[in-house]
Amino acid sequence: MKIETKTAKFTDPLYLESGRILQPYELIYETYGTLNKDKSNVIVICHALSGSHHAAGRYANEAKAGWWDSFIGENKVINTNKYFVICSNNLGSSFGSTSPMSKMYPLEELYRLKFPVLTISDIVKAQKNLLNSLGIYHLRAIIGGSMGGMQALCYSIEYPDFSDIIIPLATTAYTRPWAISSNIIAMQAIKNDPNFKNGNYTKDDLIAQGLTGLALGRMAGLIAYLGPNSINKKFGRTYCHTDGLYELFGRFEVERYLEYNAYSFPKFFDPLSYLYICKTMNIFNAARGSDKLEDALLKIKSKLYLISFSDDTLFFPEEMEEIYNIMKSMKKNNVNYKMIQSEHGHDSFLVEIHKCKDYIQKILEDKI
Amino acid sequence: MKIETKTAKFTDPLYLESGRILQPYELIYETYGTLNKDKSNVIVICHALSGSHHAAGRYANEAKAGWWDSFIGENKVINTNKYFVICSNNLGSSFGSTSPMSKMYPLEELYRLKFPVLTISDIVKAQKNLLNSLGIYHLRAIIGGSMGGMQALCYSIEYPDFSDIIIPLATTAYTRPWAISSNIIAMQAIKNDPNFKNGNYTKDDLIAQGLTGLALGRMAGLIAYLGPNSINKKFGRTYCHTDGLYELFGRFEVERYLEYNAYSFPKFFDPLSYLYICKTMNIFNAARGSDKLEDALLKIKSKLYLISFSDDTLFFPEEMEEIYNIMKSMKKNNVNYKMIQSEHGHDSFLVEIHKCKDYIQKILEDKI
Repeated sequence: MKIETKTAKFTDPLYLESGRILQPYELIYETYGTLNKDKSNVIVICHALSGSHHAAGRYANEAKAGWWDSFIGENKVINTNKYFVICSNNLGSSFGSTSPMSKMYPLEELYRLKFPVLTISDIVKAQKNLLNSLGIYHLRAIIGGSMGGMQALCYSIEYPDFSDIIIPLATTAYTRPWAISSNIIAMQAIKNDPNFKNGNYTKDDLIAQGLTGLALGRMAGLIAYLGPNSINKKFGRTYCHTDGLYELFGRFEVERYLEYNAYSFPKFFDPLSYLYICKTMNIFNAARGSDKLEDALLKIKSKLYLISFSDDTLFFPEEMEEIYNIMKSMKKNNVNYKMIQSEHGHDSFLVEIHKCKDYIQKILEDKI
Repeated sequence: MKIETKTAKFTDPLYLESGRILQPYELIYETYGTLNKDKSNVIVICHALSGSHHAAGRYANEAKAGWWDSFIGENKVINTNKYFVICSNNLGSSFGSTSPMSKMYPLEELYRLKFPVLTISDIVKAQKNLLNSLGIYHLRAIIGGSMGGMQALCYSIEYPDFSDIIIPLATTAYTRPWAISSNIIAMQAIKNDPNFKNGNYTKDDLIAQGLTGLALGRMAGLIAYLGPNSINKKFGRTYCHTDGLYELFGRFEVERYLEYNAYSFPKFFDPLSYLYICKTMNIFNAARGSDKLEDALLKIKSKLYLISFSDDTLFFPEEMEEIYNIMKSMKKNNVNYKMIQSEHGHDSFLVEIHKCKDYIQKILEDKI
């Protein structure tokens, strides 16, 4: 499968919800498949907190394929022989789009803590500008999980005529304090890390010091994404055979796993981006700008397919069900809700996406 | 109610499960009520991670009463007009019993990271030595929640003839990786904190620097103890009215609450104690020393009353139920299990103890 990675540069101002302006800005994105003549085969994929525009395929010499590679590709559920798939790196993220580590044009100085707080609406607005710049004014579908699901939901409310189908997975209409709590550990840990230097860390700090604050934040995230069922099943009480039970820093396998994955994270993810993205997720509220959630959901015209995972303990199935119930109570029939039996907590939208295969295939074939 | 606070000093060696020896050691403890002539009215209370020997009553000028004051006192459930109640500060804790900040007799040097890793069995063994030193060889009841429940359970298995009644609340027979994960955040945060100085912090570091690592660890703990139901209900999405929604470090009420409580914690709790106690809880396994949990539970002779809380997401009700089911399957009839409908997560054993009032009263009156 051919992967095209490109960067789109925008010189027009992006007016943000906060009242601030981002100008200029860039978005890095990938496409898979071929745009058909009438541009009716476009599917947009929205990524989650630590995800990137690299949703599928494998670069030359790349060990691991894109984050949703089992789902997107030739003859896969999102069939790139049929669809033209676009995934852009969210504004604020650290994989190439404009972020806190970008230059504050016309200065050479980087934004760092002067970067504006972004909302999901801002991210979606920039993404839509990208699509428009490609001559795409209507989509077949928008699909995203977690923070990507927030974006999908935001599209459905703010651009009701933009997409035929919208599929938010493992997400919420407004971030509950429970999910905010998980992010606060990360935000505090990064802020308190002396190597963070109040946002003025250097590349050397990142590499040499490892930025333990970000690692710790990632650890809190990993725990929240896995959830109790998954952690208990995956690790049990196995103890590292190299460690002593009565050594203070001797480790259970679960500790070794979390340490390894958490401390690898700062090697490829930027701490300022992490801070800003946590903030974006925390303040997400699909009802903002409307008097209440009902009014926001009333605007939706796309066919909305909500998918939750039974043991997601970050964004609970009840949160998706609430959206469905509100829409149904308003006699809106363009909504469907499905809960998938899962065993991998919030991460299920990534690792158990095969369980949604038939359902999403039918949705795309207009059979549901 | 009269509170007596005393310190017992032991010069005999305490042989620890790790093979190490603690000698000498001290336990600080409180008693409420009066020991009767035949010493048949003794109830032992076991405290949790951050608890202390100060379970009930109020010292002169003390703002807040002991941690289980609503439960223990004159004409309360644990009626001090009738019972002689003892609560000792766990070995390793930072309220006066021997801990990592004690001197390594005969040296003047403090243990710090040379302190031995303790198990629940070790803590219980020391506590039992205290009781014996008071001439008490049999108890009416042992009651404890969370880590205190681990101690209660440990008594039932290791000293089957010691207590008529044993009531473990909100606990487990072996710490699952899920609960271990919550502690690992704390352990890593403390270890990574530069002010921790690899355990060689001074009193000044504690006061001046605030030890953000311990605060962060406490924050992870608070989140785990409250759990999703409680956090969502308590805070909603209320935003601090002094903070801006688009300020990166602007806070939701839940964040303000967690920050306030987490950063207060290092003022009265020692980081090395926290590290060691997390370790003790992590390696708790009631089956250790037996081939399997069944064999351990088979030893129990006391009447065991297991109490769980419906929305405890640190030690799930299923974990208590497992103990009950195993004992029942072995035709042991000295076990009862009750799940209390709760709304405060793991903390319910503290803040919703009134819901257990009638049940525990009946247990103590031999009516169940």
